[in-house]
Amino acid sequence: MVLPEKVPFRPGYELTLKRIFDRALYMFPDMEIVYRTREGLGRYTFKDLASRVEKLASALSSLGVGKLDRVATLDWNTHWHYEAYFAVPMMGAVLHPVNIRLAPAEIAYVMSHAEDKVAIVHRDFIPLIEAVAPRVKSLEHIIVVDSDGVPDRIGGVRATHYEDLIKGHAGYEWPEVDENQPAAMGYTSGTTGLPKGVYHSHRAMVLHALSGALNVASMGERRLSSTDTILHIVPMFHVYSWGLPYISAILGLKQVYPNRLDPKVLLDLIESEGVTFTAGVPTILYMLLSHPDSGKYDLSKLTFVVGGSALPRGLAEAARKRGIYVYVGYGMTETAPILTLATIPARYLNRSEEEKLELSLRTGWPIPLVDLMVADPDLNPVPRNGKTMGEIVVRAPWVTYEYYKNPEKTEEAWRGGWFHTGDIAVWMEDGSVVIVDRDKDVIKSGGEWISSVRLEDAISRHPGVAQVAVIAAKHEKWGERPVALVVPKPGWEDKLTEEEIIGFLTRNFVEKGEIPKWWLPDKVILVEDLPKTSVGKINKRVLREKYGGVLQ
Amino acid sequence: MVLPEKVPFRPGYELTLKRIFDRALYMFPDMEIVYRTREGLGRYTFKDLASRVEKLASALSSLGVGKLDRVATLDWNTHWHYEAYFAVPMMGAVLHPVNIRLAPAEIAYVMSHAEDKVAIVHRDFIPLIEAVAPRVKSLEHIIVVDSDGVPDRIGGVRATHYEDLIKGHAGYEWPEVDENQPAAMGYTSGTTGLPKGVYHSHRAMVLHALSGALNVASMGERRLSSTDTILHIVPMFHVYSWGLPYISAILGLKQVYPNRLDPKVLLDLIESEGVTFTAGVPTILYMLLSHPDSGKYDLSKLTFVVGGSALPRGLAEAARKRGIYVYVGYGMTETAPILTLATIPARYLNRSEEEKLELSLRTGWPIPLVDLMVADPDLNPVPRNGKTMGEIVVRAPWVTYEYYKNPEKTEEAWRGGWFHTGDIAVWMEDGSVVIVDRDKDVIKSGGEWISSVRLEDAISRHPGVAQVAVIAAKHEKWGERPVALVVPKPGWEDKLTEEEIIGFLTRNFVEKGEIPKWWLPDKVILVEDLPKTSVGKINKRVLREKYGGVLQ
Repeated sequence: MVLPEKVPFRPGYELTLKRIFDRALYMFPDMEIVYRTREGLGRYTFKDLASRVEKLASALSSLGVGKLDRVATLDWNTHWHYEAYFAVPMMGAVLHPVNIRLAPAEIAYVMSHAEDKVAIVHRDFIPLIEAVAPRVKSLEHIIVVDSDGVPDRIGGVRATHYEDLIKGHAGYEWPEVDENQPAAMGYTSGTTGLPKGVYHSHRAMVLHALSGALNVASMGERRLSSTDTILHIVPMFHVYSWGLPYISAILGLKQVYPNRLDPKVLLDLIESEGVTFTAGVPTILYMLLSHPDSGKYDLSKLTFVVGGSALPRGLAEAARKRGIYVYVGYGMTETAPILTLATIPARYLNRSEEEKLELSLRTGWPIPLVDLMVADPDLNPVPRNGKTMGEIVVRAPWVTYEYYKNPEKTEEAWRGGWFHTGDIAVWMEDGSVVIVDRDKDVIKSGGEWISSVRLEDAISRHPGVAQVAVIAAKHEKWGERPVALVVPKPGWEDKLTEEEIIGFLTRNFVEKGEIPKWWLPDKVILVEDLPKTSVGKINKRVLREKYGGVLQ
Repeated sequence: MVLPEKVPFRPGYELTLKRIFDRALYMFPDMEIVYRTREGLGRYTFKDLASRVEKLASALSSLGVGKLDRVATLDWNTHWHYEAYFAVPMMGAVLHPVNIRLAPAEIAYVMSHAEDKVAIVHRDFIPLIEAVAPRVKSLEHIIVVDSDGVPDRIGGVRATHYEDLIKGHAGYEWPEVDENQPAAMGYTSGTTGLPKGVYHSHRAMVLHALSGALNVASMGERRLSSTDTILHIVPMFHVYSWGLPYISAILGLKQVYPNRLDPKVLLDLIESEGVTFTAGVPTILYMLLSHPDSGKYDLSKLTFVVGGSALPRGLAEAARKRGIYVYVGYGMTETAPILTLATIPARYLNRSEEEKLELSLRTGWPIPLVDLMVADPDLNPVPRNGKTMGEIVVRAPWVTYEYYKNPEKTEEAWRGGWFHTGDIAVWMEDGSVVIVDRDKDVIKSGGEWISSVRLEDAISRHPGVAQVAVIAAKHEKWGERPVALVVPKPGWEDKLTEEEIIGFLTRNFVEKGEIPKWWLPDKVILVEDLPKTSVGKINKRVLREKYGGVLQ
């Protein structure tokens, strides 16, 4: 008998999502969960949720859902969705939140590609699933939530009301689940080509949630704890809502599920439920601040983590003026998703507010267990000087193993043993990173790189600018040159001109040495609105098609 | 191509201690580490430590230490010890901190049983290792720390000075290590029979540290963060110093390594280094409070987690009077070690100080990923009523797989798929547990159980009691009956009598219904001191031998 090379597992050793569920039920059975339905606000405790989760698992089992079967969800941020987040993986099946912002043809594609067997569908998406269902051969059952009545069949597929379905069930014997078994899958909302599928094991999801919880509890100016209340704004149909539903369960937060996102409702909930923490894309933050009634609400207790796309400095300052503590988070579907958070390390806590704002607006520092490098094309680290651009490449226990059924893309993404994010960043001496562009959005002008994001940030500081996007237009001499698309704020429609913007940039950035003169956009185009992707990011692909033609 | 049943691992997926090391080096390179040597106080940064850790690994490698080889340490809480905590497991070898409080014959036994190849030895233990080395056949090399000179051979084994050894080395290529490979091992300081060996994988150590860090950062009245300073009092030769050296690295704490524990030095360090957090057995807390100079020190910023044995209420109150925030932690060598912490859940934070003290003195709530049950002999959970006694049984990713080379004890401890702690507790409705006794210390009187710990707690509240132990004495009629051994406080030697103690218990506990009358000790014996075990706990085995004979 000797020391084993590998210590075997004993009961209780597996990192499955049931661990998070059991912990929350043990420690925080009275954790309050507030949810909005078509009937208004409801609330229950985690203990109530737990018994419904058991019923749901039992009901799904009776529909024939077994190990590794995929269960799709087409739902807003509802408590039904949260129940599925636990029940489906814990029973050994695979949760597949479908991005309902995709086009119907794309949804038919991803549901067929994932071979979804059952779909849990919000009433808002009954017309959608009706159109899609006939093209998803694997689909056997549709479960409808937040609806009064449900037809017997939708798009030719049997349909049941969620509440009717679980009514007859009580208790469920949870199976043993291997921690390396897939727990959930999702599809990238890439702006080019078909969506690509990724999946994550229980272990990946659990470690992601533990690490995320540890980071937000131990780092930064406003550390999270079970005295906080979270409003779930990040769509649960997109990158697992950043893992926040699981992180909330670990930390025992009071949680608010707002159903379909409506800015006025969100403002109401923030005030009435005492929300202290939320997260979302910049667009949502912008909507909260620009809503006509926004000024009537006290937002000063709120922390808002911004991710999904770059946070313009102007928007951040507007939020801070309202007392909202804003900082940046970064990740992607492939990475389950959090990679970095701009939670300020303790050594900076005594700095000026101005400095701390700058630090909070960086892309951030890697969260625990994330191994990150800003690399040149040969996979060597670039200098940590805040200037040299490189690609962010990562390793972490929660980075996807592969693109599902797509070995070519997998090999490309994992070349050299690092996962390539496609994000271009500079690396600061203190280990933080600042994304300056997407690989495909960076403007390659005369052999040098121009960061579209940095230009957008500078332009956004003009008081008359509501939204801005900078794209690469083709150029005969330079290859590419920057073009800016600008949405004026109400009242600025007449005053905001190309000359005004270029003059603003010249005076405030070029003459101060913050931006090289040759970065100045060749063209500034005033527009009424900017096209968005399915997840609310500005759709640069559409802009490039429209405005990216040869300049001269 | 289908969804795999088990997601394979990609680079960066393994939970090895190098993850904690790399994270600390990336996020907190300037983390300050203060250490005491024979030459006085020194200080360096984590970055400095990291380069010495590389040198140590390289040096050990040159001595022939390879995968799974055991490296023993016989050392106090020094920075050398901390360097070994990282270097040894990270190079794929196994760290074996030897409990230097064991008898020399026991140390020879555990070092032979573990087959230690190299030993890192503090100068204080040169005489010890000299006596022991000839009996440890596997031992090839001794490395001495905190010493001026080192003889060529100690006890027949080649010897080198630590600093001489690492001097010539620079850089080290860390090998890939499987997370399930053993990282460290230790021996229980059980009061009966030979010490039993346990070992823990990298994964177990990492998850323990992550969970511990998450708990102390997110729960309780005084949440830890990188603005805190920790004084390492829990011996690093015992249960991995409760994982606190790793937890400190994760959280980026300023750390103080005090070398051999000396109450006066500890008090000096607490004040001069601004210590805010420490942990240890009640005896150390008692020593800090009862030191003649204690009153001159400001201890009001200190949090002291007490574990290892029950914290008497009187001692806790004395500590609180000095402004020390005291709470309880619980674990054992077999469980790497933390199982519970009495970090008060948020719902209690508004309670009275009196109530919060009571909560802080419970054995506590399980930390994340610990599955805990208070069970009857048939492994059914006892009611959560705060009254029914049962044994604490647990499952967690960091509970030892087995007793090394001891299948019988392993089977006994793991019967029914739960690890049996041997601790008798009551379970509260809110999920916390309160240990009332060790399985072997509980007094079985007339078929009912009397908790020796509860009696000790009551007696300790008498203003004249310095220390107390209650043991079972044999009794012809009742089987066993309680006997109390009491050490009076200075000045109370004459006033403290058996009648005084019994009267105190009767008035304050029996008449108030807090303790049944039949629990009153049959005998109260005044003594000058109580025997301690190797880790500073009161040695009840010795007391039972001396005072446990038949009473009537």
